[in-house]
Amino acid sequence: MLAAGGALEPFWALYAVHNQPHVLELLREYKVGELSPEEAAPAPAAAQDPFAGDPPRHPGLRVNSQKPFNAEPPAELLGESFLTPNELFFTRNHLPVPAVDPGTYRLRVEGPGGRGVSLSLAELRSRFPKHEVTATLQCAGNRRAEMSRVRPVKGLAWDIGAISTARWGGARLRDVLLHAGFGQEREGEWHVCFEGLDVDAGGAPYGASIPYGRAVSPAAEVLLAYEMNGQELPRDHGFPLRVVVPGVVGARSVKWLGRVAVSPAESPSHWQRNDYKGFSPCVDWDTVDFTAAPAIQELPVQSAITQPRPGAAVPAGELTVKGYAWSGGGREVVRVDVSLDGGRTWRVARLLGERPVPGRAWAWALWEVTAPVAAGAELEIVCKAVDGSYNVQPDSVAPIWNLRGVLSNAWHRVRVTVTH
Amino acid sequence: MLAAGGALEPFWALYAVHNQPHVLELLREYKVGELSPEEAAPAPAAAQDPFAGDPPRHPGLRVNSQKPFNAEPPAELLGESFLTPNELFFTRNHLPVPAVDPGTYRLRVEGPGGRGVSLSLAELRSRFPKHEVTATLQCAGNRRAEMSRVRPVKGLAWDIGAISTARWGGARLRDVLLHAGFGQEREGEWHVCFEGLDVDAGGAPYGASIPYGRAVSPAAEVLLAYEMNGQELPRDHGFPLRVVVPGVVGARSVKWLGRVAVSPAESPSHWQRNDYKGFSPCVDWDTVDFTAAPAIQELPVQSAITQPRPGAAVPAGELTVKGYAWSGGGREVVRVDVSLDGGRTWRVARLLGERPVPGRAWAWALWEVTAPVAAGAELEIVCKAVDGSYNVQPDSVAPIWNLRGVLSNAWHRVRVTVTH
Repeated sequence: MLAAGGALEPFWALYAVHNQPHVLELLREYKVGELSPEEAAPAPAAAQDPFAGDPPRHPGLRVNSQKPFNAEPPAELLGESFLTPNELFFTRNHLPVPAVDPGTYRLRVEGPGGRGVSLSLAELRSRFPKHEVTATLQCAGNRRAEMSRVRPVKGLAWDIGAISTARWGGARLRDVLLHAGFGQEREGEWHVCFEGLDVDAGGAPYGASIPYGRAVSPAAEVLLAYEMNGQELPRDHGFPLRVVVPGVVGARSVKWLGRVAVSPAESPSHWQRNDYKGFSPCVDWDTVDFTAAPAIQELPVQSAITQPRPGAAVPAGELTVKGYAWSGGGREVVRVDVSLDGGRTWRVARLLGERPVPGRAWAWALWEVTAPVAAGAELEIVCKAVDGSYNVQPDSVAPIWNLRGVLSNAWHRVRVTVTH
Repeated sequence: MLAAGGALEPFWALYAVHNQPHVLELLREYKVGELSPEEAAPAPAAAQDPFAGDPPRHPGLRVNSQKPFNAEPPAELLGESFLTPNELFFTRNHLPVPAVDPGTYRLRVEGPGGRGVSLSLAELRSRFPKHEVTATLQCAGNRRAEMSRVRPVKGLAWDIGAISTARWGGARLRDVLLHAGFGQEREGEWHVCFEGLDVDAGGAPYGASIPYGRAVSPAAEVLLAYEMNGQELPRDHGFPLRVVVPGVVGARSVKWLGRVAVSPAESPSHWQRNDYKGFSPCVDWDTVDFTAAPAIQELPVQSAITQPRPGAAVPAGELTVKGYAWSGGGREVVRVDVSLDGGRTWRVARLLGERPVPGRAWAWALWEVTAPVAAGAELEIVCKAVDGSYNVQPDSVAPIWNLRGVLSNAWHRVRVTVTH
């Protein structure tokens, strides 16, 4: 529809995720014929690869989609460091990476009456105290591959690595909003909307929003971040400025931030209204009603095993199992249970690192457990976490299956063989 | 130990829950002999029934313990009204109901340096604006009976009725704390501690505490309530004044409130430090370490079927299934899935009543679903709820089993037979 009256190629090139055999198969039915070479229009400049300007990436990443770029670190590396190195941090891009000139960049902060301010990077750095938060970001689609094995879903086949942790530095969104004249209290369901500088072929930006109360809460620590692990934001992670909403699904931490808008309703963006929502397993694409479910904000309690990997052969003796656990809304991980027999018996894992402040546990917990294992055994290793509200992960995937494959947080299961 | 050097009878009479055949069986081993009648001391006055002053109760309640009184409404009645009538509201008493003279009653509000105030009921009513909140209270042990069927646990065998909802009216705890000179900010892990006027045989009151941040948060709406559904608090529910902490386990909503104390640590009470905590299924009474788990505050997402009842014979045709769903921390119930085939297929239930403000959903949602059922069928009806953080209930009970039988929130299952 966006291409009506014009060339389809720019759209085809942008949504390159459609370049798949089963899509070409579907389209075959609609083939009318082929243009003779002399009738074909010259390829417009816009039909050139819109992703040609994307930055180089670390070769160790597991790539789920090249255009737009979506990739996760290998699980073994993910569990090795509390702060994920920038070049290994999972990347979830919806569109081409925009090229932003930091010298001319301005952030617009606006309200419904047209009032607002515009801020340069230098102003964002100098006018507001720099605030640092160690926060884990997780994609709603993390662990989607496990859900696809129950029944196909729409979305990229993320393994367990669409989650990473960094130390973010920047201005508090609260401070910027107060500077722009927005106060503490808003009645009703006001949101703060974010627009990225990444745009689709029709010029529409990536967008998302969070409730106003969270945006202005000192305790929620929402950042407009210009630093990631002590470095300038990498281009894949939002250079020169991104939102970081601790405890909330990654989709709301808008990258390449161009505009902040205080609004009486949530963002009209496709990704806010018609995506990133959870549904019952009984809902399919014929019956789904996107107005019937709330946009995902806080995520449920999650954990996964990063070591050993599925199918591994592990030596008899002492087996060390490692993994991560995290929950949304700042709820701390209070316990991780690990089973080596598919969930019949359990041990309590050791949580590594410092215990966070309850209610502000924005970062994951890494954990490990060591247990004797006998040669020849076939183990089904399982982990499940408990958060500060004593919420737990569900036992199995099928009852939480949903057509978009989001919110995949059942017990993580890894089968291994013990060698002699 | 409390009775050392004195008479055991007052303690035996108070902890009347010990009056059970298996306890008497255990004690038989330790029998030394019997006093001859002339050696027996006259029964002291304190050995008289300490529960003799308890109020009369509604005969429809299902009584789990008479002394102290612990009772729940029948499930069929529970699901019939959004506000639970006062006389049917579940009652969880730890000790005898104290007789409080409202004319001489004073609430003490104190801090660590000895500063504080004392307030009469008239002052609580006149000096602070009356605030009303519709909130559900749930006992940590709700649905413990299901957990006991996996393996025995210590605690009263609550069915699904240790949960009820009322419209509470009173002074905001926040307002009273500000009046007493306590400010907005506290570093570290400060708590606000509550002591009841109900005391054990050694004179120690029931006690519990909540984090300082929740106590002073306007959004958390913690009340010092003197009204319940528009009436004076009933004696069983804390007359003349009780705490109501919305979104938090009932154990912190201390009844017959005598003292509020701002403290750098949580309440030293047995019920805060050595009870009402969750543990792994691998922890037993020989290995439990009560310092290793946080005191339960916010509860996880919960739901149960109130109609039909287990074992019922229901007529063929249209079956209506009804129930409740609730989550802690003000997280609204966003969906309830119901299955008639043990969890293989699902339908989405209709949520009744008005939708709450997200994040301040203190009251449960009642729900219902209607489906055709064929004569002769054996149905396993299952429900599971999803909250605003997209947390879900676990599939089964065994993996969340814990030695105290708390936090029992697996899918609720009810088997019925369809008649002709």
